[in-house]
Amino acid sequence: MKRSFVREILESIDNETISFAGGLPNEKLFPSKELKKCASKVLKNKEIYQYGLSNGIKELRQKIAKMYCNSGFKTNEENILITTGSQQAMFIISKYFENKSITLEKPSYLGAINIFKLNHIKMKEVDLKKDGIDIKKFEKSFAKTKLAYLIPDFQNPTSTTYSKTKRDEVAKIIKKYDGILIEDSPYSELYFEKKETLISSQIPNNSFHLGSFSKTLSPSLRIGWIRASKELIDSLIIIKESIDLHSSGISQYILNEYLKDDANFEKHTQKIRDDYQDKMEYFCKCLDKYLPTFKYTKPKGGMFIYGSFKKIDTFELVKKAMKEKVLFVPGNQFYTNKEKINNEIRFNYTNSSKKDIKKGIKTISKLI
Amino acid sequence: MKRSFVREILESIDNETISFAGGLPNEKLFPSKELKKCASKVLKNKEIYQYGLSNGIKELRQKIAKMYCNSGFKTNEENILITTGSQQAMFIISKYFENKSITLEKPSYLGAINIFKLNHIKMKEVDLKKDGIDIKKFEKSFAKTKLAYLIPDFQNPTSTTYSKTKRDEVAKIIKKYDGILIEDSPYSELYFEKKETLISSQIPNNSFHLGSFSKTLSPSLRIGWIRASKELIDSLIIIKESIDLHSSGISQYILNEYLKDDANFEKHTQKIRDDYQDKMEYFCKCLDKYLPTFKYTKPKGGMFIYGSFKKIDTFELVKKAMKEKVLFVPGNQFYTNKEKINNEIRFNYTNSSKKDIKKGIKTISKLI
Repeated sequence: MKRSFVREILESIDNETISFAGGLPNEKLFPSKELKKCASKVLKNKEIYQYGLSNGIKELRQKIAKMYCNSGFKTNEENILITTGSQQAMFIISKYFENKSITLEKPSYLGAINIFKLNHIKMKEVDLKKDGIDIKKFEKSFAKTKLAYLIPDFQNPTSTTYSKTKRDEVAKIIKKYDGILIEDSPYSELYFEKKETLISSQIPNNSFHLGSFSKTLSPSLRIGWIRASKELIDSLIIIKESIDLHSSGISQYILNEYLKDDANFEKHTQKIRDDYQDKMEYFCKCLDKYLPTFKYTKPKGGMFIYGSFKKIDTFELVKKAMKEKVLFVPGNQFYTNKEKINNEIRFNYTNSSKKDIKKGIKTISKLI
Repeated sequence: MKRSFVREILESIDNETISFAGGLPNEKLFPSKELKKCASKVLKNKEIYQYGLSNGIKELRQKIAKMYCNSGFKTNEENILITTGSQQAMFIISKYFENKSITLEKPSYLGAINIFKLNHIKMKEVDLKKDGIDIKKFEKSFAKTKLAYLIPDFQNPTSTTYSKTKRDEVAKIIKKYDGILIEDSPYSELYFEKKETLISSQIPNNSFHLGSFSKTLSPSLRIGWIRASKELIDSLIIIKESIDLHSSGISQYILNEYLKDDANFEKHTQKIRDDYQDKMEYFCKCLDKYLPTFKYTKPKGGMFIYGSFKKIDTFELVKKAMKEKVLFVPGNQFYTNKEKINNEIRFNYTNSSKKDIKKGIKTISKLI
C-alpha cells in the first residue's frame, strides 16, 4: 500500500506554499494561552504521570457523555472510549470488523479508505446525492454488508450535509437489518447555520459515533472518542489496550481541565465557526471570480469546498500547481479506485489567509 | 479474546491495595516540576498545536538518534519512528508482519503475546535459560520463522539478562538466515551494574529496536520509538499514519524540551536506578525471610523479581491474595498456553513503599 497522497503533500509544504490541501485548522485560533494555563494547573500533580485506564480518564469521559446528554442523547461514561484522535477510533473499529464488508459514501474520507484496506475490509461504495446517500442503493448494499460508514455532517470531502429525511431513512434501515452504523462526526461542531441531529441518537445500540477535539481545540492533543453501547465499548477496549495501552494522559488531563469551563469552550467554538464561515464566503467569491468554470455547492459547515470542472484532469492540474507552490487535493484520491481520471477538487479554506486564498486561486486559474 | 489479566487487575486497584502486579514506575520519582516548566515553555507557541509529521517531530527524533550514536550505534533521525508508547511500536510491527510466524521467549511479555494473537501471528516459544534464550532451539525455530521477538535486557517477566556470548550468537543467527529481530528494550536504562550492548547494534539493517520513555520519565506521555533501517521505517509509517496520524504533539514537544538538558536526564535516570536497586534488595530480603520456599534469581536491573514455588498453584494463590488486597501476577499469564497450572510468580518492586513490601509479602506467606 502507498502512503496517502494528502499526508505526503502535507509533509512537502514549506513556508512559501499556499495549501488548500489538508484539513488543517486555523493555527491562529488555537487557544494556546488557556491550554498553557490548564497545563500549569494539572502538571503539578504526580499522579497524572502514571499509567492510566485504557478507556481514558473518567472525568473526561464524563464530560463527553454530558455533551451528548445536553443534546438529548442519553449517554454515560461507560459509553465512551477515549482514542488517540478519531483516526484511531476508525482503526480500532475496523480492526474489530476485519475481513468484513462495509457500505460507504462515494467519495469518502481517504484516511478511512486506507484503514479499511489495511484491515482487509471490502468496500461497497454508494453514490452521495445533494441531501445525503442514495437511499435505495444504500439499502440494497446495507442488506448485504450490515455495516456502514457515513459522515453525515459536512462530509469529507464533499461537505454534503444529510437532510432530516435522509437521517431518518438511514436509521430505519440500520434498525430493519439490525446492523451497525459508524457515524463519523469530526466536523459536527463547525456548523454555520444549525447543529444537525446525530443519526446515532436514533439507534444508540446499533452505532459507533465518533467525535474529536482536533477541529475544535487542537489536533496535537490527539484526543478523539467513540460513543457506543457499553457492550460494544467493552469489546473495543481489548483492541485499544493492544494498540497503545491508553492515549496520552498529559493530553487528556490538560483537555479535561480546559473543558471544566464549558461556557468558554462554547465561546471558543463559536469564534471558529465565525472565522471559517467568513473564510468560506471569501473563498467562494474568489472561485466565482477567477475560476468560474469550477462548479460547487456552498457548504453549510465544515472545512471544505468540493466541486468539479467539466473536462479538466485535476490530478494533472495539481502537479502543475505544486510547481507554483499551490496545493489542493484532486478528487480521485477520495475514491476506492483512484486510477480513474477525475475532474473534481477538494479545497480546504480554513488555514489560509484571505490574501493567500486570492493569490492561490488566481495561480490555479492561470494553469487551466 | 479476553482482556489482559494484568490490565484488569490494575484497574481494580484501590487505595488500600498493595500491588506487586503491574509494571508501574515509582510515582514519587516523576520529574513533575521540570516537566511542568518545559510545558510552560513550549505551550506558548501556536504551531505546536497543529497536525504534525506521522514519524514524529524532527528535533525529538534527532535527540533519540544521538542517544544511539553516543553508545556507538550509528543512527540518524530517519531511522527513528516516534510511537504512542512502545506498546504501539509492537502493534505497528506486528501489523506489518500479520499472519507470519515468530520465535519468542518462553515466558514472554503478555502484551506482546496479545498483540501477536490479534494480528494472527503464529508463536513459537523457545525456553529461556539463565543467560538468555536456548540457542540451539532458537536457531532451529528461527530457521523457519525468520522473525524473532526478544527482550534481552532485564526481561519481562523473568528479569533475565542475556550474556555477551548469547547476544553475539543471536546476532550471528539473525545474519545467517537474513531474518529480522524485534529487540524490545523498555528496561535497558534501569541497570544496576552496567548498561548492556544492544543486539541490534550488530545487525542494524535486520532489526527493529524498541525504546520508551515510560520507565525513565513518565508513561503518561505515551512516547516510545522504533529504531530501524530507513527502508523498514518507511514501510511502517504507512501503518502508523493509519493508526493515529501521529502521537500526541503536546507530549512530544514537552519531552523534546526536557531532553535538551541531557545531563539532567542522566541524573534523573540514575536516581531511578538507585531507588529501584534499593527496593529490589529490600524485596529480596523480605522474600528470603517470609517466603523462603519461593526460589528466584536476583535481577540485575529492570522492575521485576521472578521465581517459583515447588508445588503451589499461583493462579489460585492470587485469587486468595486479592481478597486480602495484595496483588501479583501468576506466571501462567506469560505463556501462550495460559491453561496449564503454573507455580511461578512475577513480583514488581518499583511502586510500593518498603512498609508495603514487607506487609504484602507477610500477607502472602500466611496464605500458603
